[in-house]
Amino acid sequence: MSQTPDSAVRTYIQHHRAAFLDDLTAWLRIPSVSAQPDHAPDVRRSADWLAARLTETGFPTVEVWQTPGAPAVYAEWPSADPAAPTVLVYGHHDVQPAAREDGWDSEPFEPVVRGDRLYARGAADDKGQVLFHTLGVRAHLAATGRTAPAVHLKLLIEGEEESGSPHFRALVEEHAGRLAADAVIVSDTGMWSEDTPTVCTGMRGLAECEIRLNGPDQDIHSGSFGGAVPNPATAAARLVAALHDEHARVAIPGFYDGVVELTERERALFAELPFDEERWLRTAKSHATHGEAGHTTLERIWARPTAEVNGIGGGYQGPGSKTIVPSSATVKLSFRLVAGQEPGHVEKAVRAWVADQAPAGVRHEITFSGATRPCLTPLDHPALQSVVRAMSRAFQQPVRYTREGGSGPAADLQDVLGAPVLFLGISVPSDGWHAPNEKVELDLLFKGVEASAYLWGDLAESWRDAP
Amino acid sequence: MSQTPDSAVRTYIQHHRAAFLDDLTAWLRIPSVSAQPDHAPDVRRSADWLAARLTETGFPTVEVWQTPGAPAVYAEWPSADPAAPTVLVYGHHDVQPAAREDGWDSEPFEPVVRGDRLYARGAADDKGQVLFHTLGVRAHLAATGRTAPAVHLKLLIEGEEESGSPHFRALVEEHAGRLAADAVIVSDTGMWSEDTPTVCTGMRGLAECEIRLNGPDQDIHSGSFGGAVPNPATAAARLVAALHDEHARVAIPGFYDGVVELTERERALFAELPFDEERWLRTAKSHATHGEAGHTTLERIWARPTAEVNGIGGGYQGPGSKTIVPSSATVKLSFRLVAGQEPGHVEKAVRAWVADQAPAGVRHEITFSGATRPCLTPLDHPALQSVVRAMSRAFQQPVRYTREGGSGPAADLQDVLGAPVLFLGISVPSDGWHAPNEKVELDLLFKGVEASAYLWGDLAESWRDAP
Repeated sequence: MSQTPDSAVRTYIQHHRAAFLDDLTAWLRIPSVSAQPDHAPDVRRSADWLAARLTETGFPTVEVWQTPGAPAVYAEWPSADPAAPTVLVYGHHDVQPAAREDGWDSEPFEPVVRGDRLYARGAADDKGQVLFHTLGVRAHLAATGRTAPAVHLKLLIEGEEESGSPHFRALVEEHAGRLAADAVIVSDTGMWSEDTPTVCTGMRGLAECEIRLNGPDQDIHSGSFGGAVPNPATAAARLVAALHDEHARVAIPGFYDGVVELTERERALFAELPFDEERWLRTAKSHATHGEAGHTTLERIWARPTAEVNGIGGGYQGPGSKTIVPSSATVKLSFRLVAGQEPGHVEKAVRAWVADQAPAGVRHEITFSGATRPCLTPLDHPALQSVVRAMSRAFQQPVRYTREGGSGPAADLQDVLGAPVLFLGISVPSDGWHAPNEKVELDLLFKGVEASAYLWGDLAESWRDAP
Repeated sequence: MSQTPDSAVRTYIQHHRAAFLDDLTAWLRIPSVSAQPDHAPDVRRSADWLAARLTETGFPTVEVWQTPGAPAVYAEWPSADPAAPTVLVYGHHDVQPAAREDGWDSEPFEPVVRGDRLYARGAADDKGQVLFHTLGVRAHLAATGRTAPAVHLKLLIEGEEESGSPHFRALVEEHAGRLAADAVIVSDTGMWSEDTPTVCTGMRGLAECEIRLNGPDQDIHSGSFGGAVPNPATAAARLVAALHDEHARVAIPGFYDGVVELTERERALFAELPFDEERWLRTAKSHATHGEAGHTTLERIWARPTAEVNGIGGGYQGPGSKTIVPSSATVKLSFRLVAGQEPGHVEKAVRAWVADQAPAGVRHEITFSGATRPCLTPLDHPALQSVVRAMSRAFQQPVRYTREGGSGPAADLQDVLGAPVLFLGISVPSDGWHAPNEKVELDLLFKGVEASAYLWGDLAESWRDAP
């Protein structure tokens, strides 16, 4: 009796399940915390471990790429078909800091299986989701009888994602030729929930700035001068208050220029998700929802640009009181951007707006830090549909669509390589990224392996069929 | 050839000038810094020194009053005329901290005369202006041939003014019977300038509060939640921005209830002062004026109530950026109050206004600290006119009127004793209160002695003439 291709994949995964978990456990024991300098040797060890594992998997080319910070791992496995598309998988091998005393029930770097879950720092973010591609590509080969993947497969697994990827863009630019790809698969996100498998179609971008408002040359007495000179803390507050209009829309002229609006179909798809606002609020630890009029909470966090005050400070903040007019005040703002928005255009709009708001006698300085572009793949993009089919086959049910409200270095790959970014991830919100007791659901982890195994053949096929 | 009363006063002062300066110098050598605990013995020594000096001056009753903090000095010298009015002089014997390395050209507690100025911490604020009453009352007696002052004279010289007078009100309440007076003379202020002698007619009051706005239970990720939950830093900013309307008037309903408006005569008197706005801005270290529409700078700082942000803080204020929605934000506000405003009423108005502004999902806490009432003496008040005449005789020119934008413990005397507060001071803005190289102009100091010498007789006379 001959197997279907899917059952062949499942059988292969079943046979290699235990060995895969041993591998993952070994990797998770390496505390590759990129934010802590004394873990630099561990991050290096983690890169070397992954490089060795990719070589064992069969990648003919495996390299550890140095950066001024932590090393990245790069691997290539060309398809036997020169006309096949090239796919670049992105992930990261560094992890967030973790210590038992933060509230972990077990040592964060001593992985342990309790029930159907594997607990360890990095189990879901992102070692588990990187490693599932190694078993995935082996299952793909075994089930299809190939000796090389159906696509030209490349992997770039960076070592500084948890530290803000400070050298990632330069690395990608330096190696742009070798990294060239027709599509990028990011495996560093998740899905809606255990019961609702989803595919993410985009991430928001990010622009950040700090605005300093300078009033009197030093703090001055509020009795002697108060009420007759401009107060920079008041100016800062008025600036922040003017960020949004009465509909909670960003009131900076030109901010919404180019914004790709949600289609009716996308809004309908979001609305179909089993969203429980009360539960979401508990996760957000917030006591109310609030946002742009005319949009639901999911639309607001996934598909609408925002302006957020991340910090504000000025004058006396110690105990008690001090009767001064402060000399200066500072506001830190971040703007989440959606498809169609250019960070450079937003920066110009913000600069013009701030210059327009600052009152006489209050000078302002504004500093923008590195921006991240948004990314969005249209629902009908063939590569996106390949991801959707691979996930549907793995989960044996239709998958739905989400987006990601955050911003990530994936956008650098899109920018530099000019390739669409797709997301393949199986983590769920309860996995506890960056929190104590991070875990991965083992059932979902192996669905990830399975989806990876299906994806390469599907992508190659849809590439061939494309006009 | 017989002397006029004024020339008799001047002659007496001339004869005792050197001894008076020796006394003042001795007192200024005591570093009675109330804010620094290791100077507590010096503050005590300062009180004892003053008590001894008042006894030598002739006050039959001199006491050092303990408080939970630094001691005050109390003295009484009854008039021979039981029907004479009772006058209480207020000042303080503690000083601001000072150290040579702060920018002093000589040791702050080693008084030195350079030109016509005496340099030392406390020379003007307030030891010089307290001590001139001792020579003043002796000159009054000598010139009029009396053995006791024309008024029942009381002095209360506190030891914690530079530390916010934390125990002053309780002290006044405890001794309210003995402190009872028909008028209070505060000698802890100054005048317009060397060339323009003035009498201050009132001080602003003060109400202070801290408002804490609580949003999410912890800082949350601005990518995952931003744009869909209320941000307490935004709420804080909107609160502050709403403090003033487009005319820079305080927009809190009820805030202006009861405010005693300036009369046309008072506005005209303010306008007559040789006010140089450019120079004032340099003193303020501000780069523009700004304030309530329809009022001049002097009106704004002397006679109009204000709302000022003394501090604001929330979220991330360190270097770089942090993409969070902050959990909370804090605003410190102070309100300068003018005659007719009740701190309790203002507190109620602020509380109602804040409750009305805070958005859903943002809880607020508001804490008021101790308030100070405003004080204002009408221009035609007989006791004020006595002060004006005493100053005019001392300076041999008409004096003009000012007010004080700050707030002081004098208001506690007004409140508890129910007596009008008058101000007799000869310090000038260049004296450098709280700054390095504090000094007193010797010519002005002896004009102060002279004014004090004239005041008691004038007050007794105008009291007799009062209907």
